[in-house]
Amino acid sequence: MAVITLTSDFGTQDHYVACMKGVILQTAPKATIVDITHDIAPHGIVQAAFVLRQIWPWFPPNTIHVAVVDPGVGTNRQILMARYSDQLVIAPDNGIVSLIHRDAQLQELRTVANRKFFSSTLSPTFHGRDVMAPVAAHIANGVRLSDIGPMTNHLEILKLPNPNRTDGMRLVGQVLYVDHFGNLITNVTVGDINALSARRGRVEVLVDDRSVGHIRATYGEVGAGQPLALVGSSQMLEIAINQGNAATALHATVGTPVTLY
Amino acid sequence: MAVITLTSDFGTQDHYVACMKGVILQTAPKATIVDITHDIAPHGIVQAAFVLRQIWPWFPPNTIHVAVVDPGVGTNRQILMARYSDQLVIAPDNGIVSLIHRDAQLQELRTVANRKFFSSTLSPTFHGRDVMAPVAAHIANGVRLSDIGPMTNHLEILKLPNPNRTDGMRLVGQVLYVDHFGNLITNVTVGDINALSARRGRVEVLVDDRSVGHIRATYGEVGAGQPLALVGSSQMLEIAINQGNAATALHATVGTPVTLY
Amino acid sequence: MAVITLTSDFGTQDHYVACMKGVILQTAPKATIVDITHDIAPHGIVQAAFVLRQIWPWFPPNTIHVAVVDPGVGTNRQILMARYSDQLVIAPDNGIVSLIHRDAQLQELRTVANRKFFSSTLSPTFHGRDVMAPVAAHIANGVRLSDIGPMTNHLEILKLPNPNRTDGMRLVGQVLYVDHFGNLITNVTVGDINALSARRGRVEVLVDDRSVGHIRATYGEVGAGQPLALVGSSQMLEIAINQGNAATALHATVGTPVTLY
Repeated sequence: MAVITLTSDFGTQDHYVACMKGVILQTAPKATIVDITHDIAPHGIVQAAFVLRQIWPWFPPNTIHVAVVDPGVGTNRQILMARYSDQLVIAPDNGIVSLIHRDAQLQELRTVANRKFFSSTLSPTFHGRDVMAPVAAHIANGVRLSDIGPMTNHLEILKLPNPNRTDGMRLVGQVLYVDHFGNLITNVTVGDINALSARRGRVEVLVDDRSVGHIRATYGEVGAGQPLALVGSSQMLEIAINQGNAATALHATVGTPVTLY
Repeated sequence: MAVITLTSDFGTQDHYVACMKGVILQTAPKATIVDITHDIAPHGIVQAAFVLRQIWPWFPPNTIHVAVVDPGVGTNRQILMARYSDQLVIAPDNGIVSLIHRDAQLQELRTVANRKFFSSTLSPTFHGRDVMAPVAAHIANGVRLSDIGPMTNHLEILKLPNPNRTDGMRLVGQVLYVDHFGNLITNVTVGDINALSARRGRVEVLVDDRSVGHIRATYGEVGAGQPLALVGSSQMLEIAINQGNAATALHATVGTPVTLY
Repeated sequence: MAVITLTSDFGTQDHYVACMKGVILQTAPKATIVDITHDIAPHGIVQAAFVLRQIWPWFPPNTIHVAVVDPGVGTNRQILMARYSDQLVIAPDNGIVSLIHRDAQLQELRTVANRKFFSSTLSPTFHGRDVMAPVAAHIANGVRLSDIGPMTNHLEILKLPNPNRTDGMRLVGQVLYVDHFGNLITNVTVGDINALSARRGRVEVLVDDRSVGHIRATYGEVGAGQPLALVGSSQMLEIAINQGNAATALHATVGTPVTLY
């Protein structure tokens, strides 16, 4: 039986997430439901896009990811079903799949349209419960994707900042995400680092105008409380403090420039 | 195999919720356990009553809901097993079922009394782990409800505020619940709105003494940052700010008056 | 199919926990995954050791507990697999099993070493995802423990404070853990209380220098808002305020002395 994951900005104090789980279990009682996170900042589409990109490679084929960060609920925005690397995402067409889309191959894109698979009551404010959850459950039960709705070409893609390669000897990226530990995950890839390193040899890193030294392999290469740059588990350049909080110590947040030279 | 849900004020940092899950899995290893929320405010019986009412219609028949908000643990309060719409709730007799009781038909009410189904150690402070979780697991395994304890007629019901219909042309309700987004869910029902609208035509809404206009169908009818009133996914009147936080912007909280005229 | 539990300091806003779940479900799709907590303070090994000790007795045999509080990731610390009371814990060798070890019998101790069961990519910063989760899933699938790695004798044990029995008529313990309700869980055991009580009769309790009276059986023995001492659900002496927050009201925290006399 399929895995269905849930990502949202609903928080965990209210009834919203549980309503979606109840709806899924009514239709697909054997589905394995996994919470990705419900702590996306309200209407935090970029944050959700980042988290979805991070978890994507680690789930089995046929996983159905339901992502409900939906500031446009009740407008004419569509709900999409997109298939990448044999997994599905069901989400509003608001850019939430942008980072999966950048890194994986789109295999199929449909509009979620067949009301036969919606809840019988359709609230104008909670399509997670009334559209996305029941559709996911029906797909888990074996409904064909072609029965969910027509093919479409429309897919909202966010314009996310790319590192700026000014002169080939220097690269200016930025912080894309700050995690729970205060680690700063940047938009600089392993490929970016390797390309620069091929030209320059050892690469040094600045967070804003503060040096964090050259790129390390593990936290343990610096003392506790010391900053470092390394390729993190997301295969992006990360800035951390060994056993500390880099966001606080370096006064950095999403958008802070990170320079490699 | 049955679904068992858990609602509590235990928070998520401690061992309490996990102890209950371990106990359930010892007896009913195939049960599907669903967290409703553990972020009920400490001893927040009204809040728990609201959340249970909201999730109730969305779960399958035979779901067993365990609700542990239990400031009276260790006193002589009883633990009840109540059946409504073919689902069960197991909870202290402290009013936590009040809102389910208002909207659904009570089918069976018993005191949880048969120690055969309790944990072998019975802590005076944690009946969630030692009474409610193991009893839920035994019921999931097929134990007959009549074996759990005797029928009873005693059921604590909270006195919750109803909207005040002063003159038939005006209705004064109040905020019953503030959700994670800052949406204000009131005690005014769709029926209340329809009755007033039949007399007056278009209905206007005040939060305290601030106008939020007439009742809308969706968030998208007002601009981002603008307040609105609409019938929410709970089928109650809600006050929201499109893509914003109504509780903060309107200085409103549980108990704030909401007037329809 | 086995139960796999997860304990960490990852928080719930990021992708880390979900990545571990995806990895487990790829290998062991029928495993029952239970979150213990992900709200351990960053690098809070003592707190994690306490929580693991608390949940340990309540899980079924063959449960596999994965505990990832790992400030030493990327150093030469080993990852251990320890078996106690027919359950397994997989964790860094940093003292996280200290309290289980104090109270249960160690049956088997191995180093997690066989890379055949690791993820194909091995990040230097996320062994929860790349080592501990996949190894747990393979064990859930029936891989023999002897295939995971060699036996070892090395086990880091934290030095945790024990109550100080100065003269046989007085005992000075301390607060070991503060829970979500503000209850103060001390390092004083039921055995300590019984031994003192055998000499003195009724035992009185001070938190720092403030009296909270003699030891009670339940919260309901004092009025709402009043402090009390009792043996809590963890079988340790706890200090609480009936329907209130003892940590706040008594200005107490981890390490605050608690005297019995």
